[in-house]
Amino acid sequence: MIKGSILIGSHDEAGTSFFSAIDPATGEQIEPRFASADVADVAKACALADEAFDAYAATTPEERARFLETVADNIVAIGDDLIVRVALGPVAVFGASNFPLAFSVAGGDTASAFAAGCPVVVKGHPAHPGTGELVARAIRDAVAACGLPEGTFSYLPGPSIELGGALVANPRIKAVGFTGSRAGGIALMKIAAARPEPIPVYAEMSSINPVVLMPAALEARGDALAPAFVQSLTMGSGQFCTNPGLVIGIAGEALDRFVAAAGEALTGAAATTMLTPGIHAAYDKGVAALAGHDKVATIARGCPANGANQAQGALFRTDAASFLADAVLGHEVFGSSSVVVVCRDLAEVRTVIAGLEGQLTATLILDEADEADAATLLPVLARKVGRILANGWPTGVEVSHAMVHGGPFPATSDGRTTSVGTLAMARFLRPVSFQNLPAGLLPPALAESNPWHLSRRIDGTVSRPA
Amino acid sequence: MIKGSILIGSHDEAGTSFFSAIDPATGEQIEPRFASADVADVAKACALADEAFDAYAATTPEERARFLETVADNIVAIGDDLIVRVALGPVAVFGASNFPLAFSVAGGDTASAFAAGCPVVVKGHPAHPGTGELVARAIRDAVAACGLPEGTFSYLPGPSIELGGALVANPRIKAVGFTGSRAGGIALMKIAAARPEPIPVYAEMSSINPVVLMPAALEARGDALAPAFVQSLTMGSGQFCTNPGLVIGIAGEALDRFVAAAGEALTGAAATTMLTPGIHAAYDKGVAALAGHDKVATIARGCPANGANQAQGALFRTDAASFLADAVLGHEVFGSSSVVVVCRDLAEVRTVIAGLEGQLTATLILDEADEADAATLLPVLARKVGRILANGWPTGVEVSHAMVHGGPFPATSDGRTTSVGTLAMARFLRPVSFQNLPAGLLPPALAESNPWHLSRRIDGTVSRPA
Repeated sequence: MIKGSILIGSHDEAGTSFFSAIDPATGEQIEPRFASADVADVAKACALADEAFDAYAATTPEERARFLETVADNIVAIGDDLIVRVALGPVAVFGASNFPLAFSVAGGDTASAFAAGCPVVVKGHPAHPGTGELVARAIRDAVAACGLPEGTFSYLPGPSIELGGALVANPRIKAVGFTGSRAGGIALMKIAAARPEPIPVYAEMSSINPVVLMPAALEARGDALAPAFVQSLTMGSGQFCTNPGLVIGIAGEALDRFVAAAGEALTGAAATTMLTPGIHAAYDKGVAALAGHDKVATIARGCPANGANQAQGALFRTDAASFLADAVLGHEVFGSSSVVVVCRDLAEVRTVIAGLEGQLTATLILDEADEADAATLLPVLARKVGRILANGWPTGVEVSHAMVHGGPFPATSDGRTTSVGTLAMARFLRPVSFQNLPAGLLPPALAESNPWHLSRRIDGTVSRPA
Repeated sequence: MIKGSILIGSHDEAGTSFFSAIDPATGEQIEPRFASADVADVAKACALADEAFDAYAATTPEERARFLETVADNIVAIGDDLIVRVALGPVAVFGASNFPLAFSVAGGDTASAFAAGCPVVVKGHPAHPGTGELVARAIRDAVAACGLPEGTFSYLPGPSIELGGALVANPRIKAVGFTGSRAGGIALMKIAAARPEPIPVYAEMSSINPVVLMPAALEARGDALAPAFVQSLTMGSGQFCTNPGLVIGIAGEALDRFVAAAGEALTGAAATTMLTPGIHAAYDKGVAALAGHDKVATIARGCPANGANQAQGALFRTDAASFLADAVLGHEVFGSSSVVVVCRDLAEVRTVIAGLEGQLTATLILDEADEADAATLLPVLARKVGRILANGWPTGVEVSHAMVHGGPFPATSDGRTTSVGTLAMARFLRPVSFQNLPAGLLPPALAESNPWHLSRRIDGTVSRPA
């Protein structure tokens, strides 16, 4: 049920100013109109979240799991040790434009904050206000059904930058999750750092996800790799945060064959509608800049657009020296655009990697004969990324223990963490030591009877629950 | 062997400007003079540290332990799971004035960064340049003895604020450890946040470490508690970061008896020399401000000073309403100064705790009859501190799995971590996922044969090494 309202705790607020969603395929406004939250709404939602904190943070893991099960499939496994990790406090979550579910209102940031024991105030993304509100209502219903304090969740939609700034600046908020542009993430980081009490910001911002084509693999199966690469490049109009925007290979006939085959595959790829007019405009601008760069050649473009806001895929080629000389060539063009960087030799491949900014992923396409060379690249890659994968394509993530969806700046604001996977919960926790407390005062996680059945470190040794 | 030099990698630099240590007991300069590092030295040391990074980060846990054993007793236990956590990069460490060993050149920050695989550039504290240089030479000798790259460690002494700022701003530095004043820590946090690539700062800054005297315990043993409290208060001239600067109790005869006994014990406590003239001047200023505050009564002062830079202990009393009305009464006075806050009832105790800033520790003095009341305080305390202890005194920390020496701002800049204990290493690591890599390319921590004998999470289950 979409009413276009702001959700503060258990109440709908009708709002006093409004915005509309836009159908990117037509450019037209979509009914109904949506209320824009204002700074007074921020203050109300954050105060409620703060009121909810003690009660919500005191819920058991089972209660939290039950709550989460009603709003999301991501059930976070709980582990602990002799130090309790307590929730940070109310968390602000900024929904991403590109994933209305996985990275928005009820996405990984919200789920991991809930799992950690933190109330959440979501800044709804104006690109999908209907989906946002529906999901927000589902969460609110779960709050009520589980008997949790209403401030456990609020939803503040709106297009204004002021709204987001006020949310990050609110003294009740103790951490921020964000997925979006580099400029947006950096703006929130600056607000958070300038607070009287600075708080952590977990912003996922930009990544071009280099793919390194090792010589033996390229020689053996360059033709077969090309269509798979183009499929990854054009998936979701190239709007995956792990989209392969950079391909690194060594000059030669094998690379030329790969480039030709990839160009051919891309030429036949249909133009597809991007998420918002703004994203589409930025994509066109980024592609035009590459196409007009005097050190960059256009290998191929996809099928021309035949509707509003459609992305026409783009594949470019440059040489390593030119790439190294101009940082702009390493900036993200969000969408189905990729640059092939041609290197003289393995040493130059290493130099190109060493010159990259932080990335979410790096991919090695390699055969057995490439392993010795690849081993020399791994330490350089590990300094740059959060996930290294072999013989696959980076698009797509999975919630698991071993997932790292993070990386050094500017891939994220904080490479010490991940926004996907069970480690994500750690972003919203801090350790508290309980020294010499009477048994009756120990929190359940530390109680002798281990009522939560946790793995715990006791006298230095991790013990499993009976 | 003290030469007064700057240590950059394996080289001594004689420097071009100089400073001297001051004997706080006499106020006189101590020979020899010490070279002051400048911004060019910062650039050199950081470039060397960056060069050292790949090789140092690739050392095995055994190699690091061997290295650490030669410079410190803190051997950090290594644990890991299916995600490798890789070192962040070169780390800048700012030595504290108050602990020339535990929190300085070879202190916990340096040890945990080394354990994590990070080269370290130390900004030496001008309060103890001789000790600093001796320890720095011991570390450098260990670097050489273990065959590590020289950039693994450099030591940049000097009194200039510019020196510290240049170190934090240097793009090779990927994290900062600091123990010192609130103003100093905040200045470094601002520099780190303003970098093109922001980096984490782990600053331990200020804490007044509240001690809550619960009624039954106070009634039963208030007299005996008083001398133990004064001993903790005056330990090391009150210059422990966990010094009990705030005592909270409920009005009544039992609290009056405790206050009288504590006053008596303090009156007989000798004045002792503080670490630096600057610290002593700040202490006198803070104590004078409390003594002159119209809502604060002086309970007792310690023995008068009979030498330069000696701290005369101070114990004050105020009521909860006055304490809540003036934030200045909750600010740290670094040294043997404490304020007793008299509350009407338990609800007011809770209000006083809820109004506190973040703290390193909180202490509950309680008997069995106090447990039900104490249970109502624990959630409020847990929001404020990194360590809650019962029936002890907060001064002193221990390197162990269960130690948390940290807490919400402004106790530290980052309450998600600890600077003491095995968790401290996590400050200088970030996770990297290795997806689908050929067995030969997996790092040792993930290799099937588990050559480092780590506990690892495999398919969701933690397994111990065979």
